[in-house]
Amino acid sequence: MPEISIGVAGATGYAGQELIRLAARHPAATVTCAMASASTDGNRRLPALTRIWNGEVEPLSVDRLAAECQAVFMTLPDAVAAEVGPALTERGVRVFDLAGTFRLRDRSLRLRWYPATPDLDEPAVYGLTEYYRDELQTARLVACPGCYPTGALLALRPLTDAGLLEGDIIIDAKSGISGAGKKPSERTHFSENHGSVAAYSVLGHRHGAEIEQELDRPVTFTPHLVPLDRGILETIYVRTRPGLSAAAIAEAFDAAYRDAPFVRVDGDVLPEIKHVVHTNFCDIGWRWDQASRRLVLVACLDNLVKGAAGQALQNLNVAFGLDETTGLS
Amino acid sequence: MPEISIGVAGATGYAGQELIRLAARHPAATVTCAMASASTDGNRRLPALTRIWNGEVEPLSVDRLAAECQAVFMTLPDAVAAEVGPALTERGVRVFDLAGTFRLRDRSLRLRWYPATPDLDEPAVYGLTEYYRDELQTARLVACPGCYPTGALLALRPLTDAGLLEGDIIIDAKSGISGAGKKPSERTHFSENHGSVAAYSVLGHRHGAEIEQELDRPVTFTPHLVPLDRGILETIYVRTRPGLSAAAIAEAFDAAYRDAPFVRVDGDVLPEIKHVVHTNFCDIGWRWDQASRRLVLVACLDNLVKGAAGQALQNLNVAFGLDETTGLS
Amino acid sequence: MPEISIGVAGATGYAGQELIRLAARHPAATVTCAMASASTDGNRRLPALTRIWNGEVEPLSVDRLAAECQAVFMTLPDAVAAEVGPALTERGVRVFDLAGTFRLRDRSLRLRWYPATPDLDEPAVYGLTEYYRDELQTARLVACPGCYPTGALLALRPLTDAGLLEGDIIIDAKSGISGAGKKPSERTHFSENHGSVAAYSVLGHRHGAEIEQELDRPVTFTPHLVPLDRGILETIYVRTRPGLSAAAIAEAFDAAYRDAPFVRVDGDVLPEIKHVVHTNFCDIGWRWDQASRRLVLVACLDNLVKGAAGQALQNLNVAFGLDETTGLS
Amino acid sequence: MPEISIGVAGATGYAGQELIRLAARHPAATVTCAMASASTDGNRRLPALTRIWNGEVEPLSVDRLAAECQAVFMTLPDAVAAEVGPALTERGVRVFDLAGTFRLRDRSLRLRWYPATPDLDEPAVYGLTEYYRDELQTARLVACPGCYPTGALLALRPLTDAGLLEGDIIIDAKSGISGAGKKPSERTHFSENHGSVAAYSVLGHRHGAEIEQELDRPVTFTPHLVPLDRGILETIYVRTRPGLSAAAIAEAFDAAYRDAPFVRVDGDVLPEIKHVVHTNFCDIGWRWDQASRRLVLVACLDNLVKGAAGQALQNLNVAFGLDETTGLS
Repeated sequence: MPEISIGVAGATGYAGQELIRLAARHPAATVTCAMASASTDGNRRLPALTRIWNGEVEPLSVDRLAAECQAVFMTLPDAVAAEVGPALTERGVRVFDLAGTFRLRDRSLRLRWYPATPDLDEPAVYGLTEYYRDELQTARLVACPGCYPTGALLALRPLTDAGLLEGDIIIDAKSGISGAGKKPSERTHFSENHGSVAAYSVLGHRHGAEIEQELDRPVTFTPHLVPLDRGILETIYVRTRPGLSAAAIAEAFDAAYRDAPFVRVDGDVLPEIKHVVHTNFCDIGWRWDQASRRLVLVACLDNLVKGAAGQALQNLNVAFGLDETTGLS
Repeated sequence: MPEISIGVAGATGYAGQELIRLAARHPAATVTCAMASASTDGNRRLPALTRIWNGEVEPLSVDRLAAECQAVFMTLPDAVAAEVGPALTERGVRVFDLAGTFRLRDRSLRLRWYPATPDLDEPAVYGLTEYYRDELQTARLVACPGCYPTGALLALRPLTDAGLLEGDIIIDAKSGISGAGKKPSERTHFSENHGSVAAYSVLGHRHGAEIEQELDRPVTFTPHLVPLDRGILETIYVRTRPGLSAAAIAEAFDAAYRDAPFVRVDGDVLPEIKHVVHTNFCDIGWRWDQASRRLVLVACLDNLVKGAAGQALQNLNVAFGLDETTGLS
Repeated sequence: MPEISIGVAGATGYAGQELIRLAARHPAATVTCAMASASTDGNRRLPALTRIWNGEVEPLSVDRLAAECQAVFMTLPDAVAAEVGPALTERGVRVFDLAGTFRLRDRSLRLRWYPATPDLDEPAVYGLTEYYRDELQTARLVACPGCYPTGALLALRPLTDAGLLEGDIIIDAKSGISGAGKKPSERTHFSENHGSVAAYSVLGHRHGAEIEQELDRPVTFTPHLVPLDRGILETIYVRTRPGLSAAAIAEAFDAAYRDAPFVRVDGDVLPEIKHVVHTNFCDIGWRWDQASRRLVLVACLDNLVKGAAGQALQNLNVAFGLDETTGLS
Repeated sequence: MPEISIGVAGATGYAGQELIRLAARHPAATVTCAMASASTDGNRRLPALTRIWNGEVEPLSVDRLAAECQAVFMTLPDAVAAEVGPALTERGVRVFDLAGTFRLRDRSLRLRWYPATPDLDEPAVYGLTEYYRDELQTARLVACPGCYPTGALLALRPLTDAGLLEGDIIIDAKSGISGAGKKPSERTHFSENHGSVAAYSVLGHRHGAEIEQELDRPVTFTPHLVPLDRGILETIYVRTRPGLSAAAIAEAFDAAYRDAPFVRVDGDVLPEIKHVVHTNFCDIGWRWDQASRRLVLVACLDNLVKGAAGQALQNLNVAFGLDETTGLS
């Protein structure tokens, strides 16, 4: 296989390091540039990756990324991403953004949730691989989904696409602390989270807007921090329209994911975070009460893999015509 | 104060030990009998309570409980509680049950969720202290609420009592592992829970029936295990009826709990488990979106204190005419 | 009992908050002043203590502490403590320091480990309650021991005092993350500690010097961070001198702690952190191999209680002539 | 590469499942048989391995293992391993034992620590890969080291082999709970370990004998359970002989592991468990005080990978003439 030269801009955060870890095992990609989030950051090594990847993280340089990389993964602050992303696509580099700057297509929503948002000649492709394979093949700019939307959308899209639901959609999400990023704060202090659970951004988290965009209907989305490092479990409450059977639900999932290598749907066993960490799987389970038509969906994934670095590489594979699972199984 | 002689039947489990720990500090109660769950269990000490309570847990004996105790707290298997409870009340002992055998007033529901359920001459008083203070004063048999219903009901009752809600009620609960009991099993193994979250008994947990009884309307209740020891956080999704203001919600809570020493409601700060563990507080917070009338409630408590042993002692205080906070602050 | 008016200088850290929590329950002390670590800090409330203590933390003011408090507990940065402590004792306030500024009696050691160290007219009393009860009664300035030295010294002093040991002393300590303080840093980030263990300050932690001072002999001391919030377990490796029996070891502990309400020694059951958290106990266990004369001691305590706030209050009790256990059991 | 057909006897435990997970990625080995620990166990699937390995765990059958496998990995109860191991080697199968039955060469020690121990015509090769590469090439029965000895020996052997140490060797080990096995018990209950640390088998753990055998000198070994799932950190206290320099220590490690792909020695940064979980690395760091000649070593590994399944596969690679890292990087 010819090697794809890739760059990682924002390589020292948790998602950036996971990308390098995964890319180091990818048989058709090589990390040519690993860069910090700013041009003023000094060089540094990543001790967690010793002998896995022995390069150095260098200061951010758009020129070098453009000169040396065919594809660039960005995990940058919004304002930086808003500049670097278009600068790279203009010079022919295919960009996979893992932050959020380019996810919302509606400009006013984008300005509300990501104030540094740029104007784009061409909208980004939303990189939920399972639903945008065609668009990904020619995409210049890929907005990889947020960790929460990835699980919620993979669980809901088969049902909304098939028109099986009616009424409210409520998404109660539980996330490990790595989802809050690497920057030390009171919110990420060990002692504030050990033995505790906390809801946050209730009725006001920007991932809610992202889910609404892709489902084209309103949702109530509540994220929580739970005392573990990696992983998300989302419990989703919907109601099916009258007259359905359990078989119709199962059939919708089967039709959607029969050929999706990283979505495991099980109508019997409910998923748990421990079965998906360090993998690119999204596991989905469900329980349905015929009398009340209440359907409870449970979706799980590793926020740093399927919710970030893994899905981004899955998108690279599709974009460059490789098998979707290359380097990920 | 005259001492109340109390017995603990089922003293070796987590709730039983917590009862003894709290009772040892109670200025008006003395643990006269601490007994195991079966008459065939041998004597044993409780190393976790050394110098806090130095007695021995003895084999279960109804005769001795009846002879030596004015009040008995039971944390027994359902079938045992179904026998011991009525046998004690018959002999004049006031019984506070912490399991579930006596909670459901509807006999068919009781048989469905607690098959060992006895027929009762007189229904148990449901021991949600804040709502049954009058009945508790003369109660012979008190069915202390489950840990999940305690939080959910304290959050919802002010709103349903005031008629402020309409539509579905969804309760998404996250519990520490001590809620699953002390018996070792794959479900309580450290390695199965560390770094993981799991939903269980989806659309089929008996605490759902208990909440529905007290609210007199259907609910969707989903419990989860999260990797911590003590504590529950419940996120509750409801919709307010048209025309309400935020002030009306705040007023309903204020009216309900202005004089309740153990319920802390805060309209600004959302509660977190770490603030309630090892206390008898139930903390409640909320967020409301006027446009959609979506109201999200968050309730927190320590499942072994306000969700079990603490609330049981709070009930004892009321039943014996003591100040409600005696031994609990 | 007459009320002792106390001040807490440095009330927002973990030890400071624990002090207020404990003092709020103390029947003979009242928190008159709770102050931040700097005179420039604004007023703030402590949400974790709602309804337990409802005051406000105010800017640091030595004048107000001197005017309004009989006793002041300090958990301040070294340089601040070095100024505030002597300023208060001069004005007749009895000071209990929980940091480290005043612990080392040797001036050169003090300068090495606590560079901001002041010159003192009168050395501080080292507040390891069990060994300095007499000195505490008249002490003006009490240097409460570090969390690590508390456990290590309580385990070792009975044996070194009785002359039972020879050769090296090795102390391998495992501490919860609250021991690293409340300030967010990479070291206290949840994701850096969850699922991990790390040794730190190997062969160079200042608590080693403190232990050596009190034992009057060299030790090797290695602290580790383990993924829990509160608690320390120390495993201590020594060798007994020839000709001893197990009874001699047991006797040394019994003689030392027969009347010490907060030291529990058990020759059979080894202590575990879970039995001491949220208590003022220090639990000690041991195993001895007669052939090799190897003695392994295990000591446990809650770093925020017996290792900080609890022991400080225990010292207050002794200093003011109260029963040692007042407010602590 | 020709495929090596492998069997896993004892496939449902944590080490067994990890073996299957790793073997599924191994380019030159195929899991032909996965079997339970007893011939009476029924068939079962491994939900944690869905889509990674989709076979079924079958009842134990020595005949089928002998007929269908070139190599068998055993994680069986001692008494079962003592029978199955020799039965397989007799029939030409190469056996890699992950339990302990065959580790101790001295028959009386073996009887003491592993009472079900068999007599062997030919002693097992001790499978610490880095020190037994030659013997492994022709070994019929490989006794893979215990998780604790693996880290301790990799840290100590370079120093004892070079004659750099004198005096006592003290090994203080901290292990995650998966090291205690999958069987539910009070010891592995979540609530007994969360927020706690416990020493166990003090002065009497059989891994101590194993370490002493390989070092040929006495050691003091103390294992602890810490509240995490996977990983071991060992802190080792030794003293260097007079007249050494730090360079001599560094040189001993370099000579030993210059060409060892899975041992990372760093004289500057101390290792932490989080850097080795889910890898086959053993990380080693050290601090030395010239004046006292005290040397503190810290070694880390994942008990289920380098401490069990990974090292076993590393041994398979050597035994079958493959590159040592095949399937492990």
